[in-house]
Amino acid sequence: MAQVLDTDVAIVGAGPAGLFAVFECGMLKMRAVLIDALDAVGGQCTALYPEKPIYDIPALPAIEAADLITNLETQTAPFDAPRLLGRRVTGLTGEAGAFRLSTDKGDQVTAKAVIIAAGAGAFGPNRPPMDGLEEYEVTGGVQYYVRRREDFRGKRVVIAGGGDSAVDWALALKDIAASIAVVHRRPKFRAAPEMAARLDEAAAAGAIDMVIPYQLQGLEGEGGRLTGVVVATLQGEQKVLPADVLLPFFGLSMDLGPIADWGLALERHHLPVTPATCETTMPGVFAIGDVATYPGKLKLILQGFAEGAMAAHAIHPIVYPGKALHFEYSTSQGVPG
Amino acid sequence: MAQVLDTDVAIVGAGPAGLFAVFECGMLKMRAVLIDALDAVGGQCTALYPEKPIYDIPALPAIEAADLITNLETQTAPFDAPRLLGRRVTGLTGEAGAFRLSTDKGDQVTAKAVIIAAGAGAFGPNRPPMDGLEEYEVTGGVQYYVRRREDFRGKRVVIAGGGDSAVDWALALKDIAASIAVVHRRPKFRAAPEMAARLDEAAAAGAIDMVIPYQLQGLEGEGGRLTGVVVATLQGEQKVLPADVLLPFFGLSMDLGPIADWGLALERHHLPVTPATCETTMPGVFAIGDVATYPGKLKLILQGFAEGAMAAHAIHPIVYPGKALHFEYSTSQGVPG
Repeated sequence: MAQVLDTDVAIVGAGPAGLFAVFECGMLKMRAVLIDALDAVGGQCTALYPEKPIYDIPALPAIEAADLITNLETQTAPFDAPRLLGRRVTGLTGEAGAFRLSTDKGDQVTAKAVIIAAGAGAFGPNRPPMDGLEEYEVTGGVQYYVRRREDFRGKRVVIAGGGDSAVDWALALKDIAASIAVVHRRPKFRAAPEMAARLDEAAAAGAIDMVIPYQLQGLEGEGGRLTGVVVATLQGEQKVLPADVLLPFFGLSMDLGPIADWGLALERHHLPVTPATCETTMPGVFAIGDVATYPGKLKLILQGFAEGAMAAHAIHPIVYPGKALHFEYSTSQGVPG
Repeated sequence: MAQVLDTDVAIVGAGPAGLFAVFECGMLKMRAVLIDALDAVGGQCTALYPEKPIYDIPALPAIEAADLITNLETQTAPFDAPRLLGRRVTGLTGEAGAFRLSTDKGDQVTAKAVIIAAGAGAFGPNRPPMDGLEEYEVTGGVQYYVRRREDFRGKRVVIAGGGDSAVDWALALKDIAASIAVVHRRPKFRAAPEMAARLDEAAAAGAIDMVIPYQLQGLEGEGGRLTGVVVATLQGEQKVLPADVLLPFFGLSMDLGPIADWGLALERHHLPVTPATCETTMPGVFAIGDVATYPGKLKLILQGFAEGAMAAHAIHPIVYPGKALHFEYSTSQGVPG
């Protein structure tokens, strides 16, 4: 049912950055409403790779993506922010202090400020151009996400791609799968150097077969069952890798959808913001996490968290005009009480 | 014994920001050496308030300061960074690519870059000017830090101050102490609004006695045993609060020590840095955490973590000149492998 809500801060996107922004707003006594096109909170963490281990969240040496979201839910629970899930924000009008957001389900949200934490927007995998791809997508011979590691037990797995998903999943599946081959057109991987080094180690130990420099060429199978992945060098040299499943990790296509029409400046599908406040080119509208960009921006979940804190503090004077926010660690203050 | 070490990044300060910087450097395959004046890692978390619950670390709904440090140690352990503890860095010479640091114990460290994560520097509590203070500091009638909550069981506790330490400890001790009184000269607290609201709730429920607007005036006791704290309004109206222990939380005095003499720009005991790289006014020298400042800077542990990630990425070209760092989530890349 369409809802009519009034809040301090409307947060568009319920991935880790959006969720933590609810907490940061709550700590500053600002009410928030969380809106997401998906039916569950967590964004990509929940929808795409719930079992993926994440190593670079501070003070959480290793946590699976789904557990990260569970922890964030626990942390935001005391603030009881209303959620509009399965709703896409279609319109944004108004100005700082009085925004109005509308969704494709007819909801109306008025808010004093807006935080866009839309990640890659409505995300979909980049699919490799290969004949017969659709058939194997249906049968599970080609998959774009690892939702349950156990599904790959005893399987011959071919991973294609050169980014962190390819590297991290090759490492995370190597003790479960019957075999792992990693196909990449270049020797260099776009992953954390430490993780790339672990991949090299696993390859040297014979646990992972590095198929480099090769690209995907075609699929072989019988009656919908994948049996092999054809790969080729740029010079056209071909070979067939026996396979039960192909995991192409060629990234997500960014699609900001209606956000692109709100009059905000765009830079290659991202929203440029002022560092340290995360305000976009529209006063009162802020962007955090992967959708936000500024010189030196790192696309790390950690930065999305820190940007949520910055945005919340920058929003405070909009929600509480004239009320100074004296919020600093007393440990760094020298003012007697 | 004095050590001679060669490393990529010398990290000065082993609090949470410095520890996490070791991890971020490690993920980028840069070696780090960690140096701290204290004998243990953890900075204030370990030395001043190991049992203080922290609520605003993302995905850790509540964690005691000591456990935060333990988790960070686990996370950095794989990188095995050498530690020079109980050593103060006295000298810094050289330039980006070739710095030399010396300590008061005669150690020599050469490093390609430096991260200063010195927090408040050599910290000491701001002590209230009251007669007889020293006597009660010795007997434990006046304490500046809560190292073990249990020490306050059944005690009549007077807390003085208006920052987050005063608020957080009043809340954390209220179910352990026999009574809690909070003395503050103003009705407004410099704490997260949410925590200040919880304090108000506890006061309304009678669990905490708010002594406002009052200031500390004197101490009463017998034979070194504290029995009462004398407080007064600005108009001179006095009263005595029965007390077994007084906890004055008036912040730490910042003392950068030798760092102030390294030729870096200073702003009120802080080091101004470029946001998004955290580089100081001296190329190759970076500052993160509470010691760093820039317009909009928030003194949160979270920002110290994020700044560590930014500094490490900014340092990478100094340690690996000419070697591009292709490190982005593949999920945000649209480049076929």
